[in-house]
Amino acid sequence: PHQRSTYDFFMPQAMREDIQKKLYATQLVVPSTALPNIGEWYTLSPLDTSNKKNPTSFGYPSWLYKAYNARVAHYFALRRLEGFGLSSQLPLQKMNEWRKIRHPHIVSLHEAFTTRNFNDNSLVFVYDYYPCSKTLQEHYFPAGRYKSVVVSEDVLWSYISQITAALKMIHSHNLAARCIELSKIIVDNSRIRLAACGILDVTRFGLDNKPMQQLQQEDLFKFGSVMFALASGGTIPLPNDAAKARDLLNPKLSEKLKDTIVWLISPPRSLSEPKTLEEFASTIALQLCDYIQTAGLDNDEKGRILKMEVENGRIARLTMKLNAVLERGDLGLVKDWSEVGERYHLKLFRDYVFHRVDADGNPDLSIGHMISCLNKLDAGTEEHIQLITRDSETLIITTYREVRALLNRAFNELVKHSKNGAPGSQ
Amino acid sequence: PHQRSTYDFFMPQAMREDIQKKLYATQLVVPSTALPNIGEWYTLSPLDTSNKKNPTSFGYPSWLYKAYNARVAHYFALRRLEGFGLSSQLPLQKMNEWRKIRHPHIVSLHEAFTTRNFNDNSLVFVYDYYPCSKTLQEHYFPAGRYKSVVVSEDVLWSYISQITAALKMIHSHNLAARCIELSKIIVDNSRIRLAACGILDVTRFGLDNKPMQQLQQEDLFKFGSVMFALASGGTIPLPNDAAKARDLLNPKLSEKLKDTIVWLISPPRSLSEPKTLEEFASTIALQLCDYIQTAGLDNDEKGRILKMEVENGRIARLTMKLNAVLERGDLGLVKDWSEVGERYHLKLFRDYVFHRVDADGNPDLSIGHMISCLNKLDAGTEEHIQLITRDSETLIITTYREVRALLNRAFNELVKHSKNGAPGSQ
Ligand SMILES: Nc1ncnc2c1ncn2[C@@H]1O[C@H](COP(=O)(O)OP(=O)(O)OP(=O)(O)O)[C@@H](O)[C@H]1O
Ligand SMILES: Nc1ncnc2c1ncn2[C@@H]1O[C@H](COP(=O)(O)OP(=O)(O)OP(=O)(O)O)[C@@H](O)[C@H]1O
Ligand SMILES: [Mg+2]
Ligand SMILES: [Mg+2]
Repeated sequence: PHQRSTYDFFMPQAMREDIQKKLYATQLVVPSTALPNIGEWYTLSPLDTSNKKNPTSFGYPSWLYKAYNARVAHYFALRRLEGFGLSSQLPLQKMNEWRKIRHPHIVSLHEAFTTRNFNDNSLVFVYDYYPCSKTLQEHYFPAGRYKSVVVSEDVLWSYISQITAALKMIHSHNLAARCIELSKIIVDNSRIRLAACGILDVTRFGLDNKPMQQLQQEDLFKFGSVMFALASGGTIPLPNDAAKARDLLNPKLSEKLKDTIVWLISPPRSLSEPKTLEEFASTIALQLCDYIQTAGLDNDEKGRILKMEVENGRIARLTMKLNAVLERGDLGLVKDWSEVGERYHLKLFRDYVFHRVDADGNPDLSIGHMISCLNKLDAGTEEHIQLITRDSETLIITTYREVRALLNRAFNELVKHSKNGAPGSQ
Repeated sequence: PHQRSTYDFFMPQAMREDIQKKLYATQLVVPSTALPNIGEWYTLSPLDTSNKKNPTSFGYPSWLYKAYNARVAHYFALRRLEGFGLSSQLPLQKMNEWRKIRHPHIVSLHEAFTTRNFNDNSLVFVYDYYPCSKTLQEHYFPAGRYKSVVVSEDVLWSYISQITAALKMIHSHNLAARCIELSKIIVDNSRIRLAACGILDVTRFGLDNKPMQQLQQEDLFKFGSVMFALASGGTIPLPNDAAKARDLLNPKLSEKLKDTIVWLISPPRSLSEPKTLEEFASTIALQLCDYIQTAGLDNDEKGRILKMEVENGRIARLTMKLNAVLERGDLGLVKDWSEVGERYHLKLFRDYVFHRVDADGNPDLSIGHMISCLNKLDAGTEEHIQLITRDSETLIITTYREVRALLNRAFNELVKHSKNGAPGSQ
């Protein structure tokens, strides 16, 4: 067996930092007086990194904001189309289909609404928010960097597998992704997600009456164009001739990969034989197997770390409960509720866990002691503990099980007094 | 957007219990004086649930033990073949290949060695240990239960995708799984793993000189037999005639699934056209896409929970710190240290976070509020907060950054007064 490193005992530093960076980005509010609140949407902050009004993707300039939804206590990404009004709900008809799609390689679309709070007609699409994501465009071709980029064979296959799985889901729901471009696919570590599904179904509604099959064919072509850009260095426009395109691909890539990209950007053999996602997927089945391996190993790694992190969760829950109860002051008709009755024991328990002193009266801040006490509290063990009143006059002997029962009673009393019931229940 | 439930803040109860069960099973040592230590392997405990000597799978009776490896401080599963001696290292030649395989649907094989510590010739294979796993045999056909089992279409496809991905890995390394049977595939929730790879390469060494291609063909047939058992209720022996076998499959299953199983158990069209894993995979490409979705959603879910656990980790750390500071009483020469000076602001901050009340004075126990405040505290954001004294007389306006600085100063003062210095350092 291989040697065990520190990584086997703790969450790897890189993962912790990555998560913390994202938590921080989620919390961060760039104060912007220019941005309104809209109904249940608060603290909008811009996610766009450039300030340019760009109507390329949707036919209307679009802006992306992080926004807090007060009702569900969660952040979302709002895509606003500037100057787009709706005179009927008809163009939104595909929204109900899109809301059903939950896929690891598609950013979930929750709803769409119009608003005049930006002092114009705006249409807003509500997507899941992924802190710190970049678009493939930003990731591989950041503005001002013209050096051509080399994306490795493995990464390209991984992207192909992910987009194929996403399109399988979309096409089998009788939808088309429609917006597949470098600037509308977000990347986070090695994971990519289609980030702007559903919008063109609204903005192009009634303008072209292409049948769904044709839109799905176009998906395959757009998919191919994105892969062509990544596999050719991105600076070259896609030639009309697929054979010419092939010559522009990074010569180090395998023939299989080149064939795959060329297939995507080539026209169908005949109009009666349209290209389908199913046909495409069957040609890359072995690469899909490879991606299953990648995803599974990632899953195993996360599972392993979760196992190690289980302790923290219960400590957090318990200390929050304890803090909600202690030193609360009056509750309902009970004066000084936290200090009287059996809650007093909880206060002493808190002293026992957190306010320990050594023989000389100096603070003893051993985290081991705190964690071990809280774990025993969570387990409700029969072990005895001696709680001493502040005046050192009285000694109370109890068990962790009894303290746990006390804490639950006290907390439930708070819950009963609260309007919204148990925390998290709303 | 969907409503947020408690599950959005904490690891789901079922997952927590599952992890705890596994941690417990890993630690659990069934004392067995009959089992020896072997070199660096300690505290062997039997994993076999039945006590019968069964030579069916490998031609020798085999036993499975959990064992602790002292060098790497980790548990492994040892498979012992009873009465198997080696006169040369030649039969182990494929071991070096197997050691390289790391796959989410294959139990990793680390090494093999002979030992006389069981008072016989034994050959021992060292595999990764997966607590609480069952074999597919035990899971679907527990001894004494003859009721035929119905495995759903989705689950069957998921198993097919997982085994296909595993065989892709194995065959492309010029190996064959060889041992694919219900009792040698372990299952844990919806994840399956081939659990006995590499053994037959040793025990059958030199006995049959089948070319690798033929062994790989046999893999496909054995794969099909396992799926046939699961899709037919398991009580029926596999008929020689593939068409007859088809009639025995659960009639509720789709034609596509039936075709797939029949393909696996059918002989190749001709000897010159052997069946390959590649050909097979291409026929189930859409189902591989579905499995990529399943695996990715699982990954997202684990990632989401890891994020909460990191939050919990810092919440645990922060609340422990806060609790160590608040209501402490005297410190050194300072009377009522926790209540005086700038510590008073911390007390008010604690009220702000944990003792919120609604307009009617009822407790507001929103966990979202607590978590969000503590995250902002940890990040030290510039956001303003209004702290109100208990007598509602004074309003203090401060920022999370300032409160964080206060807390650190107060805690460091405690550390300075403590004998053992910073917590966790001992
Ligand atoms: N769902 C999301 N959650 C979080 N960040 C996102 C999300 N979707 C996109 N982003 C990020 O927001 C930023 C702006 O996205 P956008 O799609 O507007 O790109 P853009 O380069 O501004 O393109 P355009 O010029 O078409 O607006 C990018 O950095 C992108 O990575
Ligand atoms: N790598 C592993 N880690 C943990 N448990 C395992 C592992 N491999 C198998 N097991 C479990 O150990 C038990 C015994 O496995 P084994 O393969 O010997 O099955 P069995 O039913 O005893 O078959 P046989 O009669 O051929 O020995 C099963 O419950 C199985 O789920
Ligand atoms: Mg933009
Ligand atoms: Mg056994």
